[in-house]
Amino acid sequence: MMGMDLQNGRVEMGHGAGGRAMARLIGQLFVEAFDNPILRREHDAAVFDLPPGRVVMSTDTFVISPLFFPGGDIGSLAVHGTVNDIAMAGAVPKYLTAGFVLEEGFPLADLARIVDSMARAARDAGVEIVTGDTKVVERGHGDGVYINTAGVGVVADGVDIAGDRARPGDRVLISGTLGDHGVAVMSKRENLGFGTDLVSDSAALNGLVADMLAACPGIRVLRDPTRGGLAATLNEIAQQSGVGIELMEDAIPVRGAVKSACELLGLDPLYVANEGKLIAICADQDAGRLLAVMRAHERGGDAHIIGSVLADQRRFVRMKTRLGGTRMVDWISGEQLPRIC
Amino acid sequence: MMGMDLQNGRVEMGHGAGGRAMARLIGQLFVEAFDNPILRREHDAAVFDLPPGRVVMSTDTFVISPLFFPGGDIGSLAVHGTVNDIAMAGAVPKYLTAGFVLEEGFPLADLARIVDSMARAARDAGVEIVTGDTKVVERGHGDGVYINTAGVGVVADGVDIAGDRARPGDRVLISGTLGDHGVAVMSKRENLGFGTDLVSDSAALNGLVADMLAACPGIRVLRDPTRGGLAATLNEIAQQSGVGIELMEDAIPVRGAVKSACELLGLDPLYVANEGKLIAICADQDAGRLLAVMRAHERGGDAHIIGSVLADQRRFVRMKTRLGGTRMVDWISGEQLPRIC
Repeated sequence: MMGMDLQNGRVEMGHGAGGRAMARLIGQLFVEAFDNPILRREHDAAVFDLPPGRVVMSTDTFVISPLFFPGGDIGSLAVHGTVNDIAMAGAVPKYLTAGFVLEEGFPLADLARIVDSMARAARDAGVEIVTGDTKVVERGHGDGVYINTAGVGVVADGVDIAGDRARPGDRVLISGTLGDHGVAVMSKRENLGFGTDLVSDSAALNGLVADMLAACPGIRVLRDPTRGGLAATLNEIAQQSGVGIELMEDAIPVRGAVKSACELLGLDPLYVANEGKLIAICADQDAGRLLAVMRAHERGGDAHIIGSVLADQRRFVRMKTRLGGTRMVDWISGEQLPRIC
Repeated sequence: MMGMDLQNGRVEMGHGAGGRAMARLIGQLFVEAFDNPILRREHDAAVFDLPPGRVVMSTDTFVISPLFFPGGDIGSLAVHGTVNDIAMAGAVPKYLTAGFVLEEGFPLADLARIVDSMARAARDAGVEIVTGDTKVVERGHGDGVYINTAGVGVVADGVDIAGDRARPGDRVLISGTLGDHGVAVMSKRENLGFGTDLVSDSAALNGLVADMLAACPGIRVLRDPTRGGLAATLNEIAQQSGVGIELMEDAIPVRGAVKSACELLGLDPLYVANEGKLIAICADQDAGRLLAVMRAHERGGDAHIIGSVLADQRRFVRMKTRLGGTRMVDWISGEQLPRIC
């Protein structure tokens, strides 16, 4: 088959029509970049063996705008997001699928950049992209590229991590600073030019989780505070576990630049999306050990114990402020940052 | 939480923002419709056991236009498509994920209709939708609803089905009439009004495949001729297996209404998408038995043996015409029917 013009070409409707143009796009771009024996069989489905254990499956569609942002792009984000969802169930992520919705006219060079970034993120995280799908929509019916990833992983015996397992007396830990992803994306989108020091924290957390589980198999809850930020994540856990949660404001790590940007934009870092952070809830007696393991990992250098689980039938999330007061940390009720992932 | 107005409400940006509005949409619409114990745990990932065997995983994003068409809608299609991709690997489909990209302003009543249709299709096919994701894009950056489904299934020992297993002398079978889906969708899209007798064949084929494998475990290739139709599917198989394929035109079942519509639209039924048909390739001595089993199933009543596999290093797909000639059945080279699935 003839080559595509990856430098100057653009996505055409035919790239999604099931014929030769689509076969060329898949062969020259996707299979080339994601190359692995399972994908190379080019069946409509991937076939593989999984190690024994409960299977974890997750999916996420990424519609982030802009597609390229400081610290990442929609491709790396699409890998990190699903890898992390699987890791947050205490599982080892293994295989991903990738589904693309391309808008007619989108530059193939940008698509190649995104696909290469996905491939790199997958290699770095130790997962394989084993099957995929490409659709093309007419100009004006998409926004460049939307990417869905779904993935599977396996949970080791003895690991039991879920949002309903937090118990009064447990401690709440965060793996690092809050708000980096959301603020980096907003600054790029709005051309705010906060300087080059603000980058997304988008990263795969499965390596960190593996270290944490090895040191502390009894971790009760893991969750990555993405859309809706720490506030939404903790409210979900409080709901599911039937408990209250109390945070200590002065223990929550937030970069100075993120703080300033949030003030300017009228945002609260507790509600801003993160893409490379996790919260963990564990028994009080495990918290010190867990914190040490997190801090020893490159993705957990700024880890802190930020709060505790309380008995509270109202399932409130509250925060002790720096000034000694207490304030509610409610769900956000509607839109905060649209299209942040 | 307060209710949503499912009768008159519309999708808002907040339905994708990770806060209370999104939780309400997920709880009241998706969890309600797809209800099952795995989904109800409301983790970001689903956790389940799989029976022993090789795992099959597949994904498809659906961008069909219009969303509702004679014989189905984007919801049922999204279930059938992924169930069928898994079944075509000879696997029993078990669990699906669902990822939605909603356009701001889309009527919640239409979304509810689509979600109910997905739920019904999943129940009918014997699969569970166990986790999902919802994103919202601004008005003018989508087209109502795009749905990604990914799924997993398990292959029984002894079954080895793949596109590279066709051998000279094998026979090619089709489970029924060609072109129904593509022509039904086009007639609705273009308001051609061919009458009410033209409906999509969108259907789950895992039951048919189970019967076929029980009777004939040695089936070599299964494939559903969706985008690009029978022509693209057979060319893929010829490429992968390194063989030629010869079809007999007068054995290929096409409804009269589809034939007429294709003539009017300038289409060839061999290139038109199907969503409830499969082709099977098996050894010559198995073909009669396989045909009988297919015809005994409600999804295979119009099954036919339509051709043979030949030794041909050029990997050509050809057709013996009714008039006794031979013509090439090439790949389509570009766009034929955009957004047909």
